[in-house]
Amino acid sequence: MSKFIFQIDKSSFSEWYSKIISTAEIADVRYGVAGFIVIRPWGMYIARELYRLFEAELEKRGHQPSLFPTVIPEENLEVEKEHVTGFKPEVFWVTEAGEEKLERRLALRPTSETAMYPMYKLWIQGRRDLPLKLYQSCSVFRYEKTPRPFIKGREFLWIEAHDAFATLEEAERQVLEDMETTRSVLYEKLGVPIMPFQRPEWDKFPGAVHTYAHDVLMPDGRVCQVASTHLLGQNFSKAFDIIFLDEDGQRKHVYQTCYGIGISRMIAALISVHGDSGGLVLPFPVAPIQVVIVPIPGEETARVLEKCRQLEQQLREVGFRVHLDDAPERTPGYKYYYWEMKGVPVRIEVGKQEVESETLTLARRDTREKIRVREEELVDAIREIAEDMLRNLKARGEANLNSMIRDASSFSELRQYLEEGGYVRAGFCSTSWEGEPCAAKIQEETRGRVRGFRIDVEEEPEGTCIVCGKPAKHVVYIARQY
Amino acid sequence: MSKFIFQIDKSSFSEWYSKIISTAEIADVRYGVAGFIVIRPWGMYIARELYRLFEAELEKRGHQPSLFPTVIPEENLEVEKEHVTGFKPEVFWVTEAGEEKLERRLALRPTSETAMYPMYKLWIQGRRDLPLKLYQSCSVFRYEKTPRPFIKGREFLWIEAHDAFATLEEAERQVLEDMETTRSVLYEKLGVPIMPFQRPEWDKFPGAVHTYAHDVLMPDGRVCQVASTHLLGQNFSKAFDIIFLDEDGQRKHVYQTCYGIGISRMIAALISVHGDSGGLVLPFPVAPIQVVIVPIPGEETARVLEKCRQLEQQLREVGFRVHLDDAPERTPGYKYYYWEMKGVPVRIEVGKQEVESETLTLARRDTREKIRVREEELVDAIREIAEDMLRNLKARGEANLNSMIRDASSFSELRQYLEEGGYVRAGFCSTSWEGEPCAAKIQEETRGRVRGFRIDVEEEPEGTCIVCGKPAKHVVYIARQY
Repeated sequence: MSKFIFQIDKSSFSEWYSKIISTAEIADVRYGVAGFIVIRPWGMYIARELYRLFEAELEKRGHQPSLFPTVIPEENLEVEKEHVTGFKPEVFWVTEAGEEKLERRLALRPTSETAMYPMYKLWIQGRRDLPLKLYQSCSVFRYEKTPRPFIKGREFLWIEAHDAFATLEEAERQVLEDMETTRSVLYEKLGVPIMPFQRPEWDKFPGAVHTYAHDVLMPDGRVCQVASTHLLGQNFSKAFDIIFLDEDGQRKHVYQTCYGIGISRMIAALISVHGDSGGLVLPFPVAPIQVVIVPIPGEETARVLEKCRQLEQQLREVGFRVHLDDAPERTPGYKYYYWEMKGVPVRIEVGKQEVESETLTLARRDTREKIRVREEELVDAIREIAEDMLRNLKARGEANLNSMIRDASSFSELRQYLEEGGYVRAGFCSTSWEGEPCAAKIQEETRGRVRGFRIDVEEEPEGTCIVCGKPAKHVVYIARQY
Repeated sequence: MSKFIFQIDKSSFSEWYSKIISTAEIADVRYGVAGFIVIRPWGMYIARELYRLFEAELEKRGHQPSLFPTVIPEENLEVEKEHVTGFKPEVFWVTEAGEEKLERRLALRPTSETAMYPMYKLWIQGRRDLPLKLYQSCSVFRYEKTPRPFIKGREFLWIEAHDAFATLEEAERQVLEDMETTRSVLYEKLGVPIMPFQRPEWDKFPGAVHTYAHDVLMPDGRVCQVASTHLLGQNFSKAFDIIFLDEDGQRKHVYQTCYGIGISRMIAALISVHGDSGGLVLPFPVAPIQVVIVPIPGEETARVLEKCRQLEQQLREVGFRVHLDDAPERTPGYKYYYWEMKGVPVRIEVGKQEVESETLTLARRDTREKIRVREEELVDAIREIAEDMLRNLKARGEANLNSMIRDASSFSELRQYLEEGGYVRAGFCSTSWEGEPCAAKIQEETRGRVRGFRIDVEEEPEGTCIVCGKPAKHVVYIARQY
């Protein structure tokens, strides 16, 4: 019976997603203010590990932590024209405090360029102050029209890194470094398949010269941008007057980049890509519990429990996050399915037989395989599972992603493939502004969005634009998006 | 010369405090919105380590992390009468989003009882759901009249833990546990002397049955509350209808506690209590850099630098946060005083002599002693310094604190001692409401505040209340506060 308590059919992704968030106690959507959710412990542990992974990676690459205020004066927001046009419709405004009306409105940060760059102007004087690479881990606020937990929140978790350089070349290198930072954590450590794009002109970050981003393909065939990095050039440094005295005695505007790591969206991606009808499947680095020990009662319960405690201690000492589920009121079967649903990577079953034979049964979450190992091999066996699980998640994810990329050679094919979900690859006239009418036509008629062209592989376009028939300049990927 | 660049006279504490925050690049107060500051990397690393220390301690004691929205609907805030009266004058209000006026005002959380407890009502059903012990690490917002960096911010960093229990006894134990949590980190690990009080009735958290708090005595003789924990009893569970079905078949309101850990204020306390005219003095656990290596150029620079890199590597591998300052454009003297000012606990000086003799010179920040150690003893020597430094900071702090507690036997003595700064100990008629007029008189005539009576030692009152002359019920501590 217990097998079915936690089963959630994943063929209807949208329902599966809502149910797993609630059943696994990742978040609670009943807070009562649309678009604002409560992150519960299981979700918060995952968020914390994601933060730590990315913070370590950023610091390894020369970034330092900082924290700017949550509120931004309206006049700051208005300094850069494209930026304010892009973000103002989404801003929450603080207008009162206590009994007083504030003299000027304060925005809840939708992103922090306009909070940070007036300070950069103060801090950057000479070449020695460059590069300046700061990040902050925080909530941001956007008045989204159709909020969805973790995917589109009115308040969501992220990291934003803002860098300033003396030269354009360094800034250009930085956006590539940022793309690598995303990949090195999300794909390399967590097995989530991602695809790196340069966005078309009309889909850039407001105020950027170029925008690069990673998309994750969700199980319903729509894509979700999880991180993006922007070459700002001198757009903001000119608007905010960020100037350094160069070694040649000239006063110059700095070159800037900014990088947003969508922690909330990565939670959504992790859950959705790896999960199955048994619930969550969490890779080791973000699993709040990595190993759960389930005692099998019966004869010799005392000896079994003692063995369990001993194993718990041993695994904790070598650094695993381990939990002994010795609650007497639940059956082992219930516990198996419960912890599977929570996504715990490894379960150890310990009964009389295990104690006597000094062997243990390990059940692995992703493949559902069970293996028996001798007690002295336990730690190595778990480490091996951790590695193999990552390999398996990557392979599974890659295979799935590749099966969801199809080439369209006509608009009707494009329409049909988008209806079925996934990426559609096609020749496209131009990702600069002149291509925008073609992208608009796609969006209008198919709800597909031109995600841009890949920057990890060179794809030479052949033939013509799938919309207008002009010679194709790029191979682009088109998909419906969140 | 370099000796004096970073010297800041601490005899005028207020100036010293402002200067060290700016010189050590802990924060920048020039953000342009009164009461909101920018935390710079040196401050943010300290904040992060403080967070990690407290989060680990809270989790060891059964708390789990969570995150509730930053915004709280006005109607939630109004549920508990005393609470809303206490906090409403300090609330920042979000009233608009995009071009729209919101239907109801949203408060930026000044504290999260009213965000969390409606959810507790949903989550708590039976005895099995108790105890519920959640915490969140976040910013809170209060419209303070006289903001001051880290001490009184309009946005500040804290942790808040909110616990629910089946019985009053458990809740009562929890507030003591919380007091111990504060002490175990702030005093035991960081050497900041604190004093634990039960607050008088008139100085309780709005909505609490009892409030307990730790104060730190700042160098100017005023006190600063760094953490507080509140026995809420059933006040909030009745207001928010948080009910569980007990094992006796009865539906009962839970007993609650809440605990606020002022991370921003602890940064202020750490800086102020340990710092000296040379700048910051940071205990090992929160020092962003624990060991700085300064090469002394001259003959054999290449060999010296190689040795420095080797030491850096070695110390990093055993887990120290270490920095090699090999910038060629600064003199060793400048570097010594710079890193002293930043509060780095240990400096290693490496020159030709050191390389040849395989001995190293260690300079210790708190005592400014220099010792020579053989290279193979380096790691042990640093560990010993870390321990001894903590002992020294504790002893120094305790001695200073004790010298700043004086007994007053008359109102004029009270007045004089408060003028001179520090705690004044005196007999007091009552810390329940009937004593409030006496406390008001003290505040009016001396600006002193009755902090309450100590809960770590029993102090039997003798004689009479220092104000009204009635028999004294408690020995209270009186001080000017931030």
